[in-house]
Amino acid sequence: MSSIGVNALKWCDELATLTATPGQMERCYLTDQHRQANALVASWLKDAGLPSWQDAAGNLWGRLPATNDNAPVVILGSHLDTVPNGGIYDGILGVVLPLLVMIELKQQGIALPFHLDLVGFGDEEGSRFSSTLLGSRAVIGQWDPNWAAIKDANGITLADAFERFGLDIHRVGEASRASDSVLAYLETHIEQGPVLEAENLPVGIVTAIAGARRFNIDFTGMAGHAGTVPMHLRRDALAAAAEFILIVEKVAREHGVTATVGRASAKPGAVNVIAGSAQVSLDIRSEKDAERDAALTMIWDTAKVACRERGIDMGWQEIHAAPAVACDDRLQSCLASAIEKHHIHPRYLHSGAGHDAMAMAAICPVAMLFVRCKGGISHHPDESITAEDADIAGQVLQDWILELAARQG
Amino acid sequence: MSSIGVNALKWCDELATLTATPGQMERCYLTDQHRQANALVASWLKDAGLPSWQDAAGNLWGRLPATNDNAPVVILGSHLDTVPNGGIYDGILGVVLPLLVMIELKQQGIALPFHLDLVGFGDEEGSRFSSTLLGSRAVIGQWDPNWAAIKDANGITLADAFERFGLDIHRVGEASRASDSVLAYLETHIEQGPVLEAENLPVGIVTAIAGARRFNIDFTGMAGHAGTVPMHLRRDALAAAAEFILIVEKVAREHGVTATVGRASAKPGAVNVIAGSAQVSLDIRSEKDAERDAALTMIWDTAKVACRERGIDMGWQEIHAAPAVACDDRLQSCLASAIEKHHIHPRYLHSGAGHDAMAMAAICPVAMLFVRCKGGISHHPDESITAEDADIAGQVLQDWILELAARQG
Repeated sequence: MSSIGVNALKWCDELATLTATPGQMERCYLTDQHRQANALVASWLKDAGLPSWQDAAGNLWGRLPATNDNAPVVILGSHLDTVPNGGIYDGILGVVLPLLVMIELKQQGIALPFHLDLVGFGDEEGSRFSSTLLGSRAVIGQWDPNWAAIKDANGITLADAFERFGLDIHRVGEASRASDSVLAYLETHIEQGPVLEAENLPVGIVTAIAGARRFNIDFTGMAGHAGTVPMHLRRDALAAAAEFILIVEKVAREHGVTATVGRASAKPGAVNVIAGSAQVSLDIRSEKDAERDAALTMIWDTAKVACRERGIDMGWQEIHAAPAVACDDRLQSCLASAIEKHHIHPRYLHSGAGHDAMAMAAICPVAMLFVRCKGGISHHPDESITAEDADIAGQVLQDWILELAARQG
Repeated sequence: MSSIGVNALKWCDELATLTATPGQMERCYLTDQHRQANALVASWLKDAGLPSWQDAAGNLWGRLPATNDNAPVVILGSHLDTVPNGGIYDGILGVVLPLLVMIELKQQGIALPFHLDLVGFGDEEGSRFSSTLLGSRAVIGQWDPNWAAIKDANGITLADAFERFGLDIHRVGEASRASDSVLAYLETHIEQGPVLEAENLPVGIVTAIAGARRFNIDFTGMAGHAGTVPMHLRRDALAAAAEFILIVEKVAREHGVTATVGRASAKPGAVNVIAGSAQVSLDIRSEKDAERDAALTMIWDTAKVACRERGIDMGWQEIHAAPAVACDDRLQSCLASAIEKHHIHPRYLHSGAGHDAMAMAAICPVAMLFVRCKGGISHHPDESITAEDADIAGQVLQDWILELAARQG
């Protein structure tokens, strides 16, 4: 085993100390912790003698330059933000591991026919503002000016958050690399699922990223006194929301898609008042957009009937929609070669989770390398990987770069 | 029709302007609005030449004195607080109406063999602090010193709220009237149910007040990524909470009791994270304690099985328990006489809602007069009564006082 695996885990641990909530992992976009994480990664780049810079959206970049200044670019990276009470590898590993590989390549004095750029996106999870992939969407030049007004839970707008971070949201267009010559984007990421562990494989090749749609759903009934309105005369919005949650679960199972209600609230929200309104979120995804949308139609149809019987009005608003994204065949083939070199079976699997690669696919071919994680757990403090697996992933990354360089020749 | 009905509605409207949320009715214990409501009622008493005082728990009192200073006391009243986004008559009518009757009796120069005391309790709903009936529980001398540390949603303790209101929680015992000679407590209140409206009756006589038990229920599962954890491997705490809500609804219907889940929340509460924990409230009540408790046992048993199948831990904490309280036969009989005097059928019915009378029963016989309300609606902006019904209720109150005086004579 090389030192890359051990060092990767060490650096992930070090980044984990930069959290908004002591004892938990929480690092959101444009926060002090984000600033500190960028500074820490930049310091590692500097120590290795590699240039680094922060772009106009707060993403952190580094470079192992090609011999030719005008060479095209290959981008390696992932995101540095986390969900509240999340894990320390989701995203982070995909920044730390290629950085260690770049340092290794530099030390070996290997000359590449492309610049090797490292990126640590500032926002992928969307935990602070209601929109995800803000970092990579700035890089691909698909930034909606309306986002400036989105507020976080404390009422701070995205525009204000930029300013407090020392950035100007009006100049976010400068973060775009859409016009650069980018040969490929490769993202290394923990699997966040149980497949590789079940098949005893350290890494896997992603074929496609499932497309997610997200909604806020409102239920409107009639508030009333919890002691005096007979059960059969109620229009209980929270009971309707509860029925919706179980419909989502049932339909998802029957249709073989993944659907989640992660948020729920009721108003007025008093112990002795029947809820007059309730709101839940819905996240639904599949590697096949048509299957996802068929399940969604079934959910709406079933819930409409249930709500009609309850005298409840149901309304919904789509807050996110992304089609499934396919990974590039040639880049997958380079990954397979690199993996087989280590006598490991090249396992192909799709990603149920969204990734920055979904956005990056807008400007270049993309690929993803999955790393086995314990119990398939992510977005949770129990998120865990081994140094051995990280090491193999690092070696595969390095071989992938060399394979790509050879084919690029 | 006398002027009492019209004036009662006018004063309820006037009190409705004292709200924390413009456009909605929200007046909580020990707030600025509470202070203003006490001042307004005190001003009406003063204008009528009747003494008023605020007790050590923030309850507002007035008195129509008996000729004999040492005479016993009959207390008429209800509460001046409301739930968030509630109605303007729940509680309020039961303060305003007897006040108008007291003014009428004073103007008629009628001498009574008892002091007629008016009370406007500061807290009945328990909307601000997690405990209900704080006002009347101070008056009956059943105050738990531990309540001092209860916090509201802004983290203000009950002790601090007392201080900000100009009171000292250590002197709350001075509000107790447990040692006074109290002949009766009569509470006038909107029905909050559909019975009187369905039977075209303006008023009704309460036989008993249903006993409520309240709980916070916690569900603990396993947080996880909304895109990567297969549906069949999830331990979704919010889905378990949803199933619980529907179990409560089903069991309540089958057992003929009233049960409500009015609050629900999930953590971490992100659109793309499976809920690792969830919390809901439960309010369950019946005029018969045994039936209520049998339904409760069925709820726990059914929910335990459902949670076990989901791999979810369920725990609960009782936050309120009150046995059903019977109204006094003699006071009910006086009410029946007063109602029949107006050629109205004396309809007996039980109260599904809790009332200050439940607490007051600890120190004296209690009775309740229900007033018809539109659609049985309460705890909602649509809460509505007519001036005609208020007027009849006022006359019944007056006749009840005279009937009681005659029997007391």
